[in-house]
Amino acid sequence: MEGALDNDSGKMGFGLMRFSKHPIVCVIDSKYQGKTVEEAVGLPYSIPVVSSVEEALHLKSKVMVLGIAPSGGKFPDVWEKPIAFALENGLSLINGLHDDLNSRFGHLLGKNKIWDVRQPKSSYPIATARAAKLNNKRILMIGTDMASGKMTAGLELYAALKSKGADVGFVPTGQIGITLMGSGIPLDAIKVDQAAGAVEEAVLAEKDRSIIIIEGQGSLAHPGSTATLPLIRGSQATHFILCHKAAHTHLRFPVSHVPIPPLDEFIQLNERVSHVCGSQNRAKTIGIALNTVGLTQDEALKKINEIENMTGLPTTDVVRFGTEKLVNSISTS
Amino acid sequence: MEGALDNDSGKMGFGLMRFSKHPIVCVIDSKYQGKTVEEAVGLPYSIPVVSSVEEALHLKSKVMVLGIAPSGGKFPDVWEKPIAFALENGLSLINGLHDDLNSRFGHLLGKNKIWDVRQPKSSYPIATARAAKLNNKRILMIGTDMASGKMTAGLELYAALKSKGADVGFVPTGQIGITLMGSGIPLDAIKVDQAAGAVEEAVLAEKDRSIIIIEGQGSLAHPGSTATLPLIRGSQATHFILCHKAAHTHLRFPVSHVPIPPLDEFIQLNERVSHVCGSQNRAKTIGIALNTVGLTQDEALKKINEIENMTGLPTTDVVRFGTEKLVNSISTS
Repeated sequence: MEGALDNDSGKMGFGLMRFSKHPIVCVIDSKYQGKTVEEAVGLPYSIPVVSSVEEALHLKSKVMVLGIAPSGGKFPDVWEKPIAFALENGLSLINGLHDDLNSRFGHLLGKNKIWDVRQPKSSYPIATARAAKLNNKRILMIGTDMASGKMTAGLELYAALKSKGADVGFVPTGQIGITLMGSGIPLDAIKVDQAAGAVEEAVLAEKDRSIIIIEGQGSLAHPGSTATLPLIRGSQATHFILCHKAAHTHLRFPVSHVPIPPLDEFIQLNERVSHVCGSQNRAKTIGIALNTVGLTQDEALKKINEIENMTGLPTTDVVRFGTEKLVNSISTS
Repeated sequence: MEGALDNDSGKMGFGLMRFSKHPIVCVIDSKYQGKTVEEAVGLPYSIPVVSSVEEALHLKSKVMVLGIAPSGGKFPDVWEKPIAFALENGLSLINGLHDDLNSRFGHLLGKNKIWDVRQPKSSYPIATARAAKLNNKRILMIGTDMASGKMTAGLELYAALKSKGADVGFVPTGQIGITLMGSGIPLDAIKVDQAAGAVEEAVLAEKDRSIIIIEGQGSLAHPGSTATLPLIRGSQATHFILCHKAAHTHLRFPVSHVPIPPLDEFIQLNERVSHVCGSQNRAKTIGIALNTVGLTQDEALKKINEIENMTGLPTTDVVRFGTEKLVNSISTS
């Protein structure tokens, strides 16, 4: 996470700290060397921060995860040496960038491996609405924007349902979810004509579960986003949970001139889109996962109340106030 | 077109016969050797049919186009030898299959070339609704199904408008359109996160035209289709023309269990989807291009009448009855 522990570009690293079932030995970011993550940036993790791959090796780490999404998605040249050093010294590597690092560094591998999380399979079948025949709840996380908390809310709900003994599966569709769960589809890297089929295949792999939570991507409100349509079509979702950043009235950069539609209208649009193509009934939205980052507790509760009144839907911030409200909604829908 | 002159798999070849501005020296399909296309299958082209690449070379052809879309999209092994022979003898090659034939046959090239029409660029920018700022008509061909006549209707309207002196551009989004126009984007082969951006870039390349016709792909009604969403978002279409096969009540194989929604509902859905993301107004549907193949003239006229009454929209089969009705609708909208 060199250079990324104190900013947004470390999304992959923060996702792993929050959800990984494997212990995290250390985080590499030389700026905070010698501190814990908590001391460095206030997040509640006592993970030591070190300054180099060499130190990480001394701490007996086994796998290095690239915790940064560099702007533009390009592999930074300054990573070349430390990664080569890590691989030559037996560390395995998990890579969530678009780059194919097996091609680039494969010759350095011994018994260790590189997992290029974002490389799609060479092909997926064309989707034919097969998921519509399943007799389970297929809950798709939809969002008003990119980065509105779809993965976090989905994983929190999955964990909560699982801990209550529910028969629940999770379908990851982005690099962090795939890294965490060990499987899934890198939807953004899949070709347009295979996208719905890839989702369908991933959902059918969980077909015996009573509940399937499908990680959302993008937004129907975003002019640059295509992912929501193949997610709706491939999963033949029965239910939606809407994710939204409470503080936002407009989409994020570079489309911050685009207003986010009123939530009730936006919900209707997503449901309307789901109401064709083999599903007898449209998907029903059963709750709103509100991301209240940047709001005080009072402001957050007020906003939750406001949105519940407007939409009539159970609304909460699952990170701040817990998952109970939405778990109940899933169980009773 | 070996084995494809008398059936559906020759779509690429038929598209070229209908629209190519370059003369077609001959068609290869050994079954009909010695006849013209008209004698062989009744289409109004006096193009000779030959049985081999060798004969095509004798007729002084310069470019060979692969006129078949083999089922599954895979390159058939039996094509290996004739293609190698063609390239070694100086023919250039236009390839609309997914396969990268430059990689496969590049070593055989002299001054001749291979154009892999369906290979996307390595990357496209993320779409930001830039087309919404253009002050022109951006007419997207939408469809109830795959293969409902979107390309044909779009090209017919483009040609008709051009012949009337209109300042009109055409944005091809599939292999046949790209081959015909010499540019465009292979939308089905582009990654999900770049799809809308690719459309936006292609539309902006025509930004100075008063009218831009955008070739449609897929359908919002199809469970395996993703392409319509990035087309709507990237083009920020101002108008739609709906393409529909009159004889069809259900989608084509392999989703023939899925009913086609009532046309008025389906139009509303497409318009509704267009009504977010930077465009102030939703796209307006201004006509229906009905494909009446398989209907008698009387049945076709009756169906056109029926649909005009139901939707209130100018409706015609542009191949059978000419483009005038829809050209008028475009000009006055």
